[in-house]
Amino acid sequence: MQLGRNRVEALTDGVFAVAMTLLVLDIKVPELEQSLSSAELPFRLLALWPKFLTYAISFVILGVYWVGHHMQLSFIRSADRPLLWINILFLLWVALVPFSTALLSEYTKHRLAIVVYGANLIAIGLTLALHWWYATSRRRHVDPDVDPGLVRTAMLRVLMGPLLYLLGIAISIFSTELSLALYALIPVLYILPGRLDVHWGMRGQEKSKRAEAKKI
Amino acid sequence: MQLGRNRVEALTDGVFAVAMTLLVLDIKVPELEQSLSSAELPFRLLALWPKFLTYAISFVILGVYWVGHHMQLSFIRSADRPLLWINILFLLWVALVPFSTALLSEYTKHRLAIVVYGANLIAIGLTLALHWWYATSRRRHVDPDVDPGLVRTAMLRVLMGPLLYLLGIAISIFSTELSLALYALIPVLYILPGRLDVHWGMRGQEKSKRAEAKKI
Amino acid sequence: MQLGRNRVEALTDGVFAVAMTLLVLDIKVPELEQSLSSAELPFRLLALWPKFLTYAISFVILGVYWVGHHMQLSFIRSADRPLLWINILFLLWVALVPFSTALLSEYTKHRLAIVVYGANLIAIGLTLALHWWYATSRRRHVDPDVDPGLVRTAMLRVLMGPLLYLLGIAISIFSTELSLALYALIPVLYILPGRLDVHWGMRGQEKSKRAEAKKI
Amino acid sequence: MQLGRNRVEALTDGVFAVAMTLLVLDIKVPELEQSLSSAELPFRLLALWPKFLTYAISFVILGVYWVGHHMQLSFIRSADRPLLWINILFLLWVALVPFSTALLSEYTKHRLAIVVYGANLIAIGLTLALHWWYATSRRRHVDPDVDPGLVRTAMLRVLMGPLLYLLGIAISIFSTELSLALYALIPVLYILPGRLDVHWGMRGQEKSKRAEAKKI
Repeated sequence: MQLGRNRVEALTDGVFAVAMTLLVLDIKVPELEQSLSSAELPFRLLALWPKFLTYAISFVILGVYWVGHHMQLSFIRSADRPLLWINILFLLWVALVPFSTALLSEYTKHRLAIVVYGANLIAIGLTLALHWWYATSRRRHVDPDVDPGLVRTAMLRVLMGPLLYLLGIAISIFSTELSLALYALIPVLYILPGRLDVHWGMRGQEKSKRAEAKKI
Repeated sequence: MQLGRNRVEALTDGVFAVAMTLLVLDIKVPELEQSLSSAELPFRLLALWPKFLTYAISFVILGVYWVGHHMQLSFIRSADRPLLWINILFLLWVALVPFSTALLSEYTKHRLAIVVYGANLIAIGLTLALHWWYATSRRRHVDPDVDPGLVRTAMLRVLMGPLLYLLGIAISIFSTELSLALYALIPVLYILPGRLDVHWGMRGQEKSKRAEAKKI
Repeated sequence: MQLGRNRVEALTDGVFAVAMTLLVLDIKVPELEQSLSSAELPFRLLALWPKFLTYAISFVILGVYWVGHHMQLSFIRSADRPLLWINILFLLWVALVPFSTALLSEYTKHRLAIVVYGANLIAIGLTLALHWWYATSRRRHVDPDVDPGLVRTAMLRVLMGPLLYLLGIAISIFSTELSLALYALIPVLYILPGRLDVHWGMRGQEKSKRAEAKKI
Repeated sequence: MQLGRNRVEALTDGVFAVAMTLLVLDIKVPELEQSLSSAELPFRLLALWPKFLTYAISFVILGVYWVGHHMQLSFIRSADRPLLWINILFLLWVALVPFSTALLSEYTKHRLAIVVYGANLIAIGLTLALHWWYATSRRRHVDPDVDPGLVRTAMLRVLMGPLLYLLGIAISIFSTELSLALYALIPVLYILPGRLDVHWGMRGQEKSKRAEAKKI
């Protein structure tokens, strides 16, 4: 079922591309009343800062989860119906992000918006963790000799997200600004290289060596 | 015309990805009047429940039909102009789903919205059945030795959808709530593994065995 | 530069998928004032018929041009900068279709809307013809031994579209309804199999025979 | 990590396709008040000219950057986490273009709109230059024997964009019309074939020769 994987990737990449690009629709061009002098425009653009901030936060965190999904699929060798459905559930949460981002950008100081946004990203993270658990438990859809250390490291890395977003929600009791700051920080943590890259990098090199060997 | 199949898949995956992600545009962030206290927001979000429900129903049922199309194409070996056009008709109905979903979410208690939504999904199901019938009748575009049991089982599975949506429309005479409940149930029925998976799974294994054999 | 073709296909399929699916955004759910009885909804939905009609016309004609582009690329063996740019110009017109469709659906009885819609589709058709001319003249990007009859037949078929849309624009002097009827008819003409399919089909069979031969 | 490149391409092509097609949403069908005669429509459509102009400018310049990214990836042999993240940053700026285009089309005579639009395209260009620099410095992700002349020529070509947009912003002190004219001119400069094509073309020919040789 290699074909299957190609199409799962195509749908996933499509939903991510559309969801990431739709985020921009939340940033609306300010309308100036005729009576106002054009000197008003800079202030109106500056007032859009929460829109730009949440656009960047959501774009990058969707990039993070896209990379995570990408990494998982690079280890998965086959697929069955439950795995397909876990993937569709994952995409259902991903496609909701433009809504929760618009909510957060409109109500940056309301705890509820912080909670809804965090909950959406926790749902994405947990579904991705379920995807990994289902594929790797009893080596169902990965190579039987896959490094158990890699399986564990990847799982911890995926679970880090939901934990941090839970923390972000908890912090909002004290300060919504602090929550927002944490939300902005989470993608950065994922961008930093981690222990997982060692596994991934090695595997990539091994693969290209094998490909090299084949050519000869 | 293998190339052809790749591009049909690309257009199909693209239309599905966009249609599924556009569903979120129907869930609009509530606008609070300045005079209202922020305590109003939770109630306004809760009032959006029909939007969230229909979003989930439509997202998952589109996922169902995407998996169904995916399964059909995995058996189809060639294509001709009529098959291409049946596929485009199929996509025409798929791309209408964001409209019929928005109608249903706005008028959950109107029979007409129930009927229009059901009719849209019946059209998708019947076109997918036509696609399968055209490809398999006289083994036009599938392997000549494809299991007739599989051809029949897949057809019954595709036709189950339109029948259930017809039932949903009929039930709306008595209760639109019951219709909505049935609509929410239909995707779940498709998610459960069926007799078809036996065929599909076996074929997948066979294929990977052949691929295995090729490598050696 | 095979890779190049893959990516040109990916961008093209993406723009077509998005443009075709965005058409649905023009069909807006009718808003009923609170005071109106729900019996009003059927009439409001029926009043949307020009939206549904133009949605279907545009969706299918975009399908026609997608198939045409698809057929051209299946003969093209290489690419250079001008070909890439003709393709991007082609996509520029394609992505405008949601606008000209919305204009036509809003002003079905205005000659200007008929003209703008027709002009948009003429631009698509002429750019596709330019694409074919550039690729095939002096056999620049196709096999040197490609059948000259096929090159001519394909060109005539592409040019049929702009001619028919020109006729549609001319007819609008007498009756916009007649123009609209012609616009609805044009995709149907393309769906009917033509002389081109003989070439294409033969080539497809040849290809699969070669593929067959390779396997043995 | 060949697989990785395929998926990076898929996400990139998806974001470009969606961003380019979303541009059309800024061109809204004019609404005529009932009282106005239909003779008003032509003037209302003509008044949309800044929307059409900025649509074309942005569509083509996105095409330019898509071709540029495409050319870079055709030389890149591997990927690592930083390269992936530079790519996502690149897409973040690309997906913002529908906003800055809408701003420019609404406020063509405001210097600020000229500055914001130019800044967005400078950001795209500089990120693409960073992508090339990271991939080629110390031959990190390209063939070790890649022609240094090509690396330099490609870099200069990428940097030409940001420089010209900077000039466009500077000119706006004197005349926003002149800036707009320069913005319209920049894509044309990129469409003209340059010294880079010699490298690219030669390489393409070499490749196809190798492929030829393989077949024999």
